[in-house]
Amino acid sequence: MTQIDPTADLITLINVFTVDPAHQQELVDVLVSATEHHIRHREGFISANIHTSTDGTRVLNYAQWTDVAHFEAMLADPACRPHLAAAAALATYDPHLYTVTSTHHR
Amino acid sequence: MTQIDPTADLITLINVFTVDPAHQQELVDVLVSATEHHIRHREGFISANIHTSTDGTRVLNYAQWTDVAHFEAMLADPACRPHLAAAAALATYDPHLYTVTSTHHR
Repeated sequence: MTQIDPTADLITLINVFTVDPAHQQELVDVLVSATEHHIRHREGFISANIHTSTDGTRVLNYAQWTDVAHFEAMLADPACRPHLAAAAALATYDPHLYTVTSTHHR
Repeated sequence: MTQIDPTADLITLINVFTVDPAHQQELVDVLVSATEHHIRHREGFISANIHTSTDGTRVLNYAQWTDVAHFEAMLADPACRPHLAAAAALATYDPHLYTVTSTHHR
């Protein structure tokens, strides 16, 4: 199970895709396939968590890696590029590296 | 601990704030204060998880509520409005309701 833990020693990459609702499911399929067949087997990968907005206009990937170097090595790997290109053809995207600053519970 | 669980019966509200890096910390302070003093005590609240982008330009709140009605009741409560307005004065924001579609692990 993925946990959001401010004390965990990892990096968080959140990528927000803005998509035509007609292509939301296709984009999810591309991301799930790339993650299952390639990305999740890479060293340094911890988790990917695909979210779909109920209004159809967003897909959000909440991903965790052990460190920035392993994440960047994935991006630079030619084997991963067709998947990244397929996602980019369907949507605009806004990826950022994040730190979990604080968590609050009831 | 916050968990990202596709089988959990809850709603996920992810709000991405775009902010001048000079105001990133101030925005975090506003969100943390509003959450600690007001929002987390409301019925239906499960968690809020404040993330800061390492490039300084984003703050992201990954929040979980039991259902849409309780979340919307918070938005409509006059007691919560000053906090929402304070955040809006510091940043633009892009909130959407999401479903956790799939999770993947190494």
